[in-house]
Amino acid sequence: MSSTGQFRIEKDTLGEVKVPAYAYYGSQTQRAADNFQISGITLPRSFIRAQGIIKASAAQANMKLGELPDNIGRVIVQAAEEVIEGKWDHQFIVDVYQAGAGTSQNMNVNEIIGNRATELLGSSLDPSANDFRVHPHNHVNMSQSTNDTFPSALHIATVENISEQLLPAIERLVKELNVKSEEFNSIIKSGRTHLHDAVPMKLGQEFAGYTDTIRFVYENIKASLDPFYEIGLGGNAIGTVINTHPDYPQTVIQEINSRINYPFRQPVEMFSFMQNRNAALRMMSVLKELAVHLIKITSDLRLLSSGPRTGLAEISLPPFSLVQP
Amino acid sequence: MSSTGQFRIEKDTLGEVKVPAYAYYGSQTQRAADNFQISGITLPRSFIRAQGIIKASAAQANMKLGELPDNIGRVIVQAAEEVIEGKWDHQFIVDVYQAGAGTSQNMNVNEIIGNRATELLGSSLDPSANDFRVHPHNHVNMSQSTNDTFPSALHIATVENISEQLLPAIERLVKELNVKSEEFNSIIKSGRTHLHDAVPMKLGQEFAGYTDTIRFVYENIKASLDPFYEIGLGGNAIGTVINTHPDYPQTVIQEINSRINYPFRQPVEMFSFMQNRNAALRMMSVLKELAVHLIKITSDLRLLSSGPRTGLAEISLPPFSLVQP
Amino acid sequence: MSSTGQFRIEKDTLGEVKVPAYAYYGSQTQRAADNFQISGITLPRSFIRAQGIIKASAAQANMKLGELPDNIGRVIVQAAEEVIEGKWDHQFIVDVYQAGAGTSQNMNVNEIIGNRATELLGSSLDPSANDFRVHPHNHVNMSQSTNDTFPSALHIATVENISEQLLPAIERLVKELNVKSEEFNSIIKSGRTHLHDAVPMKLGQEFAGYTDTIRFVYENIKASLDPFYEIGLGGNAIGTVINTHPDYPQTVIQEINSRINYPFRQPVEMFSFMQNRNAALRMMSVLKELAVHLIKITSDLRLLSSGPRTGLAEISLPPFSLVQP
Amino acid sequence: MSSTGQFRIEKDTLGEVKVPAYAYYGSQTQRAADNFQISGITLPRSFIRAQGIIKASAAQANMKLGELPDNIGRVIVQAAEEVIEGKWDHQFIVDVYQAGAGTSQNMNVNEIIGNRATELLGSSLDPSANDFRVHPHNHVNMSQSTNDTFPSALHIATVENISEQLLPAIERLVKELNVKSEEFNSIIKSGRTHLHDAVPMKLGQEFAGYTDTIRFVYENIKASLDPFYEIGLGGNAIGTVINTHPDYPQTVIQEINSRINYPFRQPVEMFSFMQNRNAALRMMSVLKELAVHLIKITSDLRLLSSGPRTGLAEISLPPFSLVQP
Repeated sequence: MSSTGQFRIEKDTLGEVKVPAYAYYGSQTQRAADNFQISGITLPRSFIRAQGIIKASAAQANMKLGELPDNIGRVIVQAAEEVIEGKWDHQFIVDVYQAGAGTSQNMNVNEIIGNRATELLGSSLDPSANDFRVHPHNHVNMSQSTNDTFPSALHIATVENISEQLLPAIERLVKELNVKSEEFNSIIKSGRTHLHDAVPMKLGQEFAGYTDTIRFVYENIKASLDPFYEIGLGGNAIGTVINTHPDYPQTVIQEINSRINYPFRQPVEMFSFMQNRNAALRMMSVLKELAVHLIKITSDLRLLSSGPRTGLAEISLPPFSLVQP
Repeated sequence: MSSTGQFRIEKDTLGEVKVPAYAYYGSQTQRAADNFQISGITLPRSFIRAQGIIKASAAQANMKLGELPDNIGRVIVQAAEEVIEGKWDHQFIVDVYQAGAGTSQNMNVNEIIGNRATELLGSSLDPSANDFRVHPHNHVNMSQSTNDTFPSALHIATVENISEQLLPAIERLVKELNVKSEEFNSIIKSGRTHLHDAVPMKLGQEFAGYTDTIRFVYENIKASLDPFYEIGLGGNAIGTVINTHPDYPQTVIQEINSRINYPFRQPVEMFSFMQNRNAALRMMSVLKELAVHLIKITSDLRLLSSGPRTGLAEISLPPFSLVQP
Repeated sequence: MSSTGQFRIEKDTLGEVKVPAYAYYGSQTQRAADNFQISGITLPRSFIRAQGIIKASAAQANMKLGELPDNIGRVIVQAAEEVIEGKWDHQFIVDVYQAGAGTSQNMNVNEIIGNRATELLGSSLDPSANDFRVHPHNHVNMSQSTNDTFPSALHIATVENISEQLLPAIERLVKELNVKSEEFNSIIKSGRTHLHDAVPMKLGQEFAGYTDTIRFVYENIKASLDPFYEIGLGGNAIGTVINTHPDYPQTVIQEINSRINYPFRQPVEMFSFMQNRNAALRMMSVLKELAVHLIKITSDLRLLSSGPRTGLAEISLPPFSLVQP
Repeated sequence: MSSTGQFRIEKDTLGEVKVPAYAYYGSQTQRAADNFQISGITLPRSFIRAQGIIKASAAQANMKLGELPDNIGRVIVQAAEEVIEGKWDHQFIVDVYQAGAGTSQNMNVNEIIGNRATELLGSSLDPSANDFRVHPHNHVNMSQSTNDTFPSALHIATVENISEQLLPAIERLVKELNVKSEEFNSIIKSGRTHLHDAVPMKLGQEFAGYTDTIRFVYENIKASLDPFYEIGLGGNAIGTVINTHPDYPQTVIQEINSRINYPFRQPVEMFSFMQNRNAALRMMSVLKELAVHLIKITSDLRLLSSGPRTGLAEISLPPFSLVQP
């Protein structure tokens, strides 16, 4: 056996690479981890989960279209579902600041699924064993390219994160601000312009403004989710949909939608999907809009709770952040 | 007469101010121009026009509601219409970087209209003449505050600029890109990923991506106009709608809409209008989205037209920008 | 005569251009003004002055080195000195947002000086007159390229602006803060952390902090001027110093230094001067450092002067910015 | 015993907190970890190390000045040295995005050192044991405030990181660029302006420009380290140096310098140190200057290595980043 002790030796076009014996990832991942020692931060759970969803759905589509033998496809789906559940998160070792379009990240998931599927078939991971191995590129990455799967994974992760985490959190905030707005409606205080005393107002009116503002940006976040439903799977390297079965794009998206119950769809114009991250660019701005408003509101609260003897001291915030040695 | 030669002397709570004899603006404007010698840039035509629209409409509303005598209101409207047409643009002398909420800018238009209306009544601008003068604050600024008129003027100017200049320009661009996309559909070229040779594609496909992208942001600009239709006139200093006739807000907005034919409306929540520039913050991001896409596309064109002997040289741009000594 | 009424017709490689009869600028400038209708803002006085300094000094250097006949050089110098004085500022009509490296701006000054020098020789500006004309490119731009003169003009304008305007202004500010710091040294106030009451301090200590901070950034601005003294005149299009007399670089810089009394020098490494705007990139950051500190200090002052009844009201600022209708 | 199973119960002014039995950190840290569940990222090794250096040096200074009994001081130093070495990094659990001035981070190190020192004395960590405990605030934080130790730790960590990591890395880069510049001095290529063919140049000249540019910013990074040597230990909450021994500031800095051999010194003006992060603001800009230049150079390399058949293909980069499925 070519592996000695805790490592096995893998070979690729650039030569030999030593990989930990326990690792499902392989030579490409190892090279990337060695090359991109930048931040020590890896891609988040939600992104890895989205990669798993794409890999499972692609294998299902490829089986349906007769491109991938069922015995191979089945173990790929099983391994991909383990990735979805988070079982192999610790094996996603490539730094978030990696070169290019995310090729190394795509190879990380391909190699993990390929080797784990190989193991599920009863084969050895060690190349020197000459067992049948599920191939990370030919089998796991079948009908795919980094250039179509990586942005599609970004779309899926964003949709799940924003729908399931952010929007419910903002709903709670709006509800709470609304409660405060009504609760404070009997409290009369001085209005201010440029921090100078102005006419009187109710504290509840101030909070009614906050409520409306957050509701306003909430609607924008929701509306800006729609372009994320366009995923260009099948577009391949540059959007020309070559080297894939003509029914692959619609089939893989159906598989995804039946798996996670969102209305993903093919892009109206594949080339703009491949050229830009239109949806992400917009959402970045919309999240900044939210951030600007939250910073403004919390700055107000900080100012209103200043003092208590030499500040505005109009409201009182919970004590935690004030305990200061 | 207290004025000597080319100047007249105006008095306010801070003392005497020398103002050019020809000027319709008065002491507040002169003080602001002296204090804010920053950039030499003044507010644009479209903003001054919007200020004139508000001043004319406010006078009409105040007359309708019996707050302003008709003889005074009529000359205010006439003077404001001259501001709308651009007749007194050269008298808007306050720097765009002025303190606070735009008070000086508001006083600039108030003083110009007040003095011009005074002149239309046949009175002298010189305070020492003791003629009846249309008062910049009591008459021209009646039912208003900088805090409600300045952001409302911003909304009106933005609506006019974007509806009448920007959106038609983008429509022409989309149409032109579409023409090129079809014209170039027979030209085969190398696709590229990370500037490296990839599979072949049509030049028309590249331009189809551009067309779709610009169309995508066009829809966002259009959608982001809607919140600009909310204008908080009548909100006064902080949004509590005090010191104004209860029917003033709806009346002044009706006057504006019948004058320039847009669907301006009262804010759903006056306090968020007074606290923030929600609409403007969003539009800034959306215009940045447009800018990012235009820069990306023009960078592509610059790259594709590089050479001609040692560059990509795939397309050829018109010669102007290339003539270089 | 080919000119009719108020225009003359000029010809270049792209065809005929109609130029105002009074204009010293010519076809290239006119084309640029027509093409770049962007902001309506043109380059500032200080930059035009720097262009004039370079053009005069280049002509002097070219005469000294025997490249330019004295009779032509003399009128170029005279015309360039008129540009330096600001006599033809109104003829610099190219938008500040112009394509490329500033070619149009360079042609604007070349054409103005060329035609004005032509006039000084007693020739007609009208091409149809067939008089001897001082050529904007062959004579005025001799030994130069946009790529070396434009960044050199930027360096000269920056040195003059910062040495003669900004640094003296900061010196006055530091002096004034220092006076206040001593004046306020007997005033005891509450210190604050996170806007909450902390231990007592003197108002003078607060201002001593401001003084020291501004002095700290003042030293950085001063130190960051040094790289601006490197000017790559003679570098030509890309820094290879071709097509110019070998003594031109040192000669033209001597002429500049004797004209405006600064220690400009040749770049240590011409190619980094041509590749980047190293000095300008750094100064941008240093000016931002100043801006951050000024905004922090003025925010403090705004907060300390808030109220008077419902704010901190620790200090009182001059009344102007507070007069608010 | 009040602790059950794997937890112990700690009490503070806000009530009871359950803390893992193995933890050296205590109630303040636990509350902060619960409250600030933001990014999952904690402060880096170098910052924790700097905190340990300050805590050890402060204990030594307090012992020297007779403020802290030697038996307590000795175990604090021993525990702090374990923090310096990285032994308790996993117990620094507060998110990098924490409220205020870093109070929670300061309490995290205080509690770890206090409890570890308690253990070194042979006492139980469990409050119910009523053993003598080294107090995180009264003993470990003696003569200190978050407001003086946190920015001082930032200065120490920055000095160590930049002196020992960044500057040597840039030196290697400059050396390597210089080697390439000489190696490429015989290769003639087309120069370009705006990506258009210009006059010929040597590839070595291009790299000479890179070398000089990086050297230029290297000198700036080095010069910008100097203000980091000012550390305001002893300044306490707002810089008034109350509640500490008058010799504490100089003594603690001497202890730090003898421990890590850098020339740290007292701030010339304590109040500017407490008001702002002057040194950090400047270094941020200087690092951005470096980043701008590196991005420019790598963009050039990417462009020069484009192709190979439909790109510039002037140079060839190592294969790793190009392997793309």
